[in-house]
Amino acid sequence: MIEKESLITVIEAEEIIFSHLYKSSIETIRLEDSLGRHTASDWLADDDIPSYDRVMMDGIAIRFRKEQFGWKIIAIQRAGEEAGNLSSDEDAIEIMTGSVLPKGADTVVPYEHIVIDGSNANFQGPDLKLGQNVHIRGRDKKQGDLLLKNGRQIRFTEMGLAASLGLTKILVHSKPRIAILSTGDELVLPEQKPMPHQIRMSNVYMLSGLLQQLDMAFNFQHVSDDGEALEKAIEKLLNENDVLLLSGGVSKGKFDLVPATLMALGVEKHLHRIAQKPGKPFWFGTKDDKTVFGFPGNPVSTLVCALRYFRPWVYKSFKENTTEQWAISDYAFTRHKNLTQFIQVKCTQTSEDRFSVYPVDGGGSGDFTQLSGSDGFVEIPSGVGVIADGERLAFFGFF
Amino acid sequence: MIEKESLITVIEAEEIIFSHLYKSSIETIRLEDSLGRHTASDWLADDDIPSYDRVMMDGIAIRFRKEQFGWKIIAIQRAGEEAGNLSSDEDAIEIMTGSVLPKGADTVVPYEHIVIDGSNANFQGPDLKLGQNVHIRGRDKKQGDLLLKNGRQIRFTEMGLAASLGLTKILVHSKPRIAILSTGDELVLPEQKPMPHQIRMSNVYMLSGLLQQLDMAFNFQHVSDDGEALEKAIEKLLNENDVLLLSGGVSKGKFDLVPATLMALGVEKHLHRIAQKPGKPFWFGTKDDKTVFGFPGNPVSTLVCALRYFRPWVYKSFKENTTEQWAISDYAFTRHKNLTQFIQVKCTQTSEDRFSVYPVDGGGSGDFTQLSGSDGFVEIPSGVGVIADGERLAFFGFF
Repeated sequence: MIEKESLITVIEAEEIIFSHLYKSSIETIRLEDSLGRHTASDWLADDDIPSYDRVMMDGIAIRFRKEQFGWKIIAIQRAGEEAGNLSSDEDAIEIMTGSVLPKGADTVVPYEHIVIDGSNANFQGPDLKLGQNVHIRGRDKKQGDLLLKNGRQIRFTEMGLAASLGLTKILVHSKPRIAILSTGDELVLPEQKPMPHQIRMSNVYMLSGLLQQLDMAFNFQHVSDDGEALEKAIEKLLNENDVLLLSGGVSKGKFDLVPATLMALGVEKHLHRIAQKPGKPFWFGTKDDKTVFGFPGNPVSTLVCALRYFRPWVYKSFKENTTEQWAISDYAFTRHKNLTQFIQVKCTQTSEDRFSVYPVDGGGSGDFTQLSGSDGFVEIPSGVGVIADGERLAFFGFF
Repeated sequence: MIEKESLITVIEAEEIIFSHLYKSSIETIRLEDSLGRHTASDWLADDDIPSYDRVMMDGIAIRFRKEQFGWKIIAIQRAGEEAGNLSSDEDAIEIMTGSVLPKGADTVVPYEHIVIDGSNANFQGPDLKLGQNVHIRGRDKKQGDLLLKNGRQIRFTEMGLAASLGLTKILVHSKPRIAILSTGDELVLPEQKPMPHQIRMSNVYMLSGLLQQLDMAFNFQHVSDDGEALEKAIEKLLNENDVLLLSGGVSKGKFDLVPATLMALGVEKHLHRIAQKPGKPFWFGTKDDKTVFGFPGNPVSTLVCALRYFRPWVYKSFKENTTEQWAISDYAFTRHKNLTQFIQVKCTQTSEDRFSVYPVDGGGSGDFTQLSGSDGFVEIPSGVGVIADGERLAFFGFF
């Protein structure tokens, strides 16, 4: 059966996939669980910041006057204690960093600038300035000021910010519910010793690692290459999830039942087969708000498609401004006339802190065996001639 | 009390801290939990790879001969089925990608190169090559070959590799047990509304986010500024953990009890107070195999010390070859004569894909409020003059 098919290009595939992003809903989570999530509301100051005149050095609080030689220490006020009262500019109250400024005081002299003798503090320091070492209420922000915009990703610094604002329940954009479904009768579980005609399933463990790295929960299931079982499994998973990652069953083999099964279930095919190597058999479709990625069974093909299409789809769905990664070629890569190639490479960092990459022989087997010496893939667009040493290449890392 | 103290430099501090790395032990974990961990054994091939002569295309398996026009298809062999038998070079067996090569066959002709008419397959393709589209047993690796060295970090690609090798229980280097202990009587829980002399605790939420990002489990506790309570808490946490992150209580205030308490508990002080801004009061010590990081109570000071000392200490403890990050200054930073400064900056990516940074006004408050517009700190070494626009600076990111 010679088939004249015109494959779509990597760029066309990318456009199609990125035009079907995940539409999140909004959910409330605990502050403790918020790292990496995306805010679904503006964060406003619930009070002035600071919320009181705050002492910024350990030392004594005084009332400023022009000529100053010493003070009588009348009290100690700890951080966390209510503001004391200073009624004379000859008196001082010992205070700690973080304390509220005593009433009647306006200036803080640090221990480094005084000598304490009994209850007397003698001034030794450089000239005093009115208001020194006091962080005035509301200086940074006023109550109601915008502190973080809707849609921003929560880093550890924003976790600290949320705590300081009293945000212990946080509105965030929901993450998709994801299922991995693996097919292929030649596959056995990793704990099993394969027969001579079998291999262990490994694809799904790579995909599960990738999902963990993206901080996405998922469930996983394997079905045999049986049309009815496959249809039942996909139907159930589509009902219960937003995203389906299928591994295997999308090539041209007699028992590659995935495309027909998806079609029978009403999943609209947006693309199947891309002019690329490896990863040509990749399938992508949607049904209402559900998205289906059909990865080839071959591990390296799956990895290429996951890093080239699925991971950026996740990033773009959450509007992260992760720019593409680029690497500088340290090698002359020969283009393929019709296919975009993804070549596994190792990175080195040059003196100018540029990523420089050179190819690693993968043996062509498509197994994970050959990947552990590599750091990622570079994309070699189809065409004539070579990509010369020193050119910029799109890079897709294993990290 | 004028105190003439000579502070140690950032470089000296770094040397001291990095000479007391965490010494891991070895533990066994499940493959599913292995992302990001570091192997504690070599990974060897448990069989030849591939473990059988593997078919690499969907099509027919034949026995090669010089002149070839067509074959009679005598059987279909699915992936996952035992090898069929081919006894004549005029016969063929239909096979799928991933199948074991039928006995007696040596070559695979893809569907693209034949036309099937009933049970006859007529050759249409380019010249055949003996052995084409067959991946011979053991071509990639032989049984016992080294696939991954002890000490390597497990990425999602290595999770796939482990599965393919049948490694479902994995020996890894243990992670430290970590406790966060927060002090400071002015602090209330985030869910509480602070009184005018109180603030919400935020430091520990930032630290907990950082630990989550480092994939480190931890427990957290707050104690009041009471000597006995503090000593009890630290003693218990030191017994139960490998690393203690203390927040607050290390400056010069009257109630900064942490250094004396640690000393009383036999924790050896390696450094206290560094010539830097912010983060000067930082404390570091060890007791046997236990490590104590004493962060200042001020949030931004804690953040600087956590990113400058603690996070690299974690990386170095696990021998990760994470090189330092650098940024190109887009601004002339004025040096401080005696102190290394850490300035909060925003990054932009230039056309050459270089990190370029410019300062963001932090208002000097030391609160997280001012950090959400920033991407990290740059380190401005002490000295005279300015660091000119275009110079390279060490960068510590909030990600």
